[in-house]
Order: sequence, then structure tokens, then C-alpha cells
Amino acid sequence: MNEPNLIAGERLDGLPSQGIQIIQNPDMFAYSLDAVLLAYFANPNKKGRGLSVDLGAGTGAVGLFYAKKVSGQVKLVEIQEDLAQMAARSVRLNQLDDRVSVIHSDMQEVFEQIKPGSVDTVLCNPPYFPVKKTTKQNEDEHYQIARHEVAIDLPKLAQTANKLLKNKGKFFMVHRPERLGDIFAALSARGLEVKHLQFVYGKADREANMVLVEAIKQGRSGGVRILPPIVAYTADNQYTKQVETILYGQPWTMD
Amino acid sequence: MNEPNLIAGERLDGLPSQGIQIIQNPDMFAYSLDAVLLAYFANPNKKGRGLSVDLGAGTGAVGLFYAKKVSGQVKLVEIQEDLAQMAARSVRLNQLDDRVSVIHSDMQEVFEQIKPGSVDTVLCNPPYFPVKKTTKQNEDEHYQIARHEVAIDLPKLAQTANKLLKNKGKFFMVHRPERLGDIFAALSARGLEVKHLQFVYGKADREANMVLVEAIKQGRSGGVRILPPIVAYTADNQYTKQVETILYGQPWTMD
Repeated sequence: MNEPNLIAGERLDGLPSQGIQIIQNPDMFAYSLDAVLLAYFANPNKKGRGLSVDLGAGTGAVGLFYAKKVSGQVKLVEIQEDLAQMAARSVRLNQLDDRVSVIHSDMQEVFEQIKPGSVDTVLCNPPYFPVKKTTKQNEDEHYQIARHEVAIDLPKLAQTANKLLKNKGKFFMVHRPERLGDIFAALSARGLEVKHLQFVYGKADREANMVLVEAIKQGRSGGVRILPPIVAYTADNQYTKQVETILYGQPWTMD
Repeated sequence: MNEPNLIAGERLDGLPSQGIQIIQNPDMFAYSLDAVLLAYFANPNKKGRGLSVDLGAGTGAVGLFYAKKVSGQVKLVEIQEDLAQMAARSVRLNQLDDRVSVIHSDMQEVFEQIKPGSVDTVLCNPPYFPVKKTTKQNEDEHYQIARHEVAIDLPKLAQTANKLLKNKGKFFMVHRPERLGDIFAALSARGLEVKHLQFVYGKADREANMVLVEAIKQGRSGGVRILPPIVAYTADNQYTKQVETILYGQPWTMD
């Protein structure tokens, strides 16, 4: 591990199972369990030897957790310059510079740096909430872009992922279950066929608060599989064995 | 309970929690856990004082289990005459003739007997499988109609349910998770907005093999909620407490 070079306000958050540390600034944005589970869920073609792209990478959590389990190149695309710089510092910190690079760009304008049709796997932890009049105007801009569909919405994201991917390339996303209808509509209208869903339930007797989505470009239609439930917490508010293993267990392996 | 009047090949299957017995003939079709969970899941408006219709009622399992928890009228619509007659005998057997009636009709032609826009709740346990060239032609006709989209498919079912329902009336269905994309597409194109989904997993570490769906006619879009997981069996192949209670516990109550 290289020296972290932290700036005022920053801290290091680690994912023990993957041996990754991420430079974070809670004033801007901090990753959460969503990012970990997306990286864990993503199951790329060719055992991850191909090119993978994390769209809207933020501080690089998803892409770096994922990079540790694959052997191919990973490109992190982030629209906000300060977050992109933090991600680049985390890449160096984790000594992954040979396989992981950061591109500071709007994902919709990234096609000079990443050729359309060249990508095996696209990952995205997108903003979850539609833009509404009730969106707090005084919310920090970093949080607003990360949480609300200001810079990117589901149809534009699906369009971008489709353009980047090879045929039969895979798209992995984490989102909120309440958007499930929008997710099916946006993806299927743009040639991305939903193949796997996995729901994350806060507790065994609670509604799902997260959904993990796998779609395939030009996939055959009509066969969604719902993977076993992930339950995050026990009744007494501890991580379940299942999630504890993902966070603190052995390094993740590919199927 | 009246006398069952069984015919050769028939047997009685009971649902202890609801105190209901159903006349079945395994050579024709027998209900399964799907029917029980659909009836349990259905959560009608007005605490079930309105009119409910079970489309494709078969031997009446869904409608009769459900009838025991509501106070309103329940109409069972079944296209196959012999199944409709068995359902009618089960209605009398359970002494529910005052509130439950059977209509022998194609659901798409039921509008003289049930007025369009008059129904509060529609229930359906439809055929799960698209018609394909590989469908076994020598399969018993009763099973074929119950399992394959021969007599009714998702778009026609959604159309029929929409026509029967009042505005804000509820549609409840059980289906296979692999059809989830088709379900969203068929329902939303016909004015039925998916509001709740509940996935049933055979075991805690298995993929879901059933999905329970609630949609609302002219419901507001964009807010699917995923109810807590139902897990059917324990690791050693016993019913879980959750399902045991539904089958053998106290009579079901309404929210």
C-alpha cells in the first residue's frame, strides 16, 4: 500500500475482504453498502479479463473493490473533478495504477477516451432519485449529483452503457426497488435485457431497500432470474453472516 | 361443512388455517402453494367488503381461501366446464353459497355476467408458460390450459382485469419471476400500475420461484415496494415457520 496523502477533511475507509482502502471526504460524498454489494454482485464475462468501466465512479469505491477480483483493465469515469482526483489518488494508494485509470468526464461524452462497442462490462451506482421541485436547493452539489438525476437519468445511463458495450456485454447496476418499473422500461427500450435481479432486505422481515441488476446487451428476452435474498442485518442490528463475509471474509472469487 | 359428494378419482384437500376443503382431481389439476400464497397476499380495498373476482379459478382454491377472509361477494370465473362444476361443489361443501358463485365462461367474455368497471378486486393464478412449439401436445388438456398461455396470455389477462376493475381497484396475481419483464410491460401498457411485489424463495439460499404481484388500476406510477421475502422451506426440507403459520395457523386477518 502506498502512502495515502490525505488532505484536510479526508479519511480512509477500508474493505478488509478485498484489501482496498478508499480516500473519502464525508463532506462531499461517502460510499455505502450499496457500492460494496454492486462490486460483489458483478459477474463479468471472461472471468473479468476484458475491459470494465465504472460510470459515475465517485471516489472509486465500486471500481476499486471490483478491480481486486478481476484481472482486466478498469476505467473509472467521474464528472466531478475533485472526486475524480480523489479516486486517482486511491488508485495509486492501492497500487492498481497498472490496471485502473480515472477519466474525468461526463459519461455521455466519454466516447473519445473509450471507444463505443469496446467494453465488456459496465458498472454503475447511479443517482437514485428523480429530480423534483422538492429537491433541496441548498444540498451540497456533490451529494445532489450523486443522489438526484441531475447529471444523468436512467434512460441516458442505459443509452450510454449500451453504446459502450460490446454485443453480449454485461451491465451491472445497484438501484432502489421503487424504481424497478422504470429500470425495466429504460433498459429494455435501449437493448439491455434484464437477466438477473437480487434484492437486498434490511432485515428478514423488512421490505427490500436495494436491488442489484444485471442486464445483457442484445440478450434474449424473457428470462429474469431472482437470485437468493441478501439480508443485511439480524434482528438485533448486527450484520448477518452473509454480509459479514462479504465485508470481512476471504477475498471475493469469480464464479 | 356439507357432504362432499366425491366422484371417482376425486379427493379432498384442506387448508386448515382457513377451514376450507377443496374437491380436487389430480388427473385434471391440483392447486399448490401458489394458490394459497396468492389468496393470503391479496389485500383488497374496503377490507374486502366489495366485489372480488377470481379469473381462471380452476377448482376454486384461490377464491375459496380468499373468501374466508373477506366479507364481500366473490365470483369465480372458469373456462373449463368440469373444473367449474367441481368449484361449484366445493362452494356448497364449504357452505359459502351466499357469497361465492361460479361462472362457467371464458374470462374475456364474462362482461354480461360481470359489469365492466364494477369490480373492487381481481385475483388470478394464470398459466405461467408461453406457448411454444416445444409444448407437449399429448399433455392433458386441463393441465395445458392451466399451465400454458393457450386460452389466456398476460396482455389479454391485463386487458380483462382492467376492464372489470373500478378505478383504483386492485389486481393480485401470482406468477413466475422469469416473466417479471413481461409482467411490467403487460400491466403498465393496460393501465395497471405495479405497486407491490413479494418474492417467494424455495429456500433461503435459492433463487425465487414465485412472485406475488399487486397492481392498481390508474395507480400513480413509479413506486414499487418489495415486501419481505417469503422463504418456503428450511435447509432440511421442512416448511418454515412463516409458511407453516399461513397453512396451519390462525385464520388469516386483513390489515
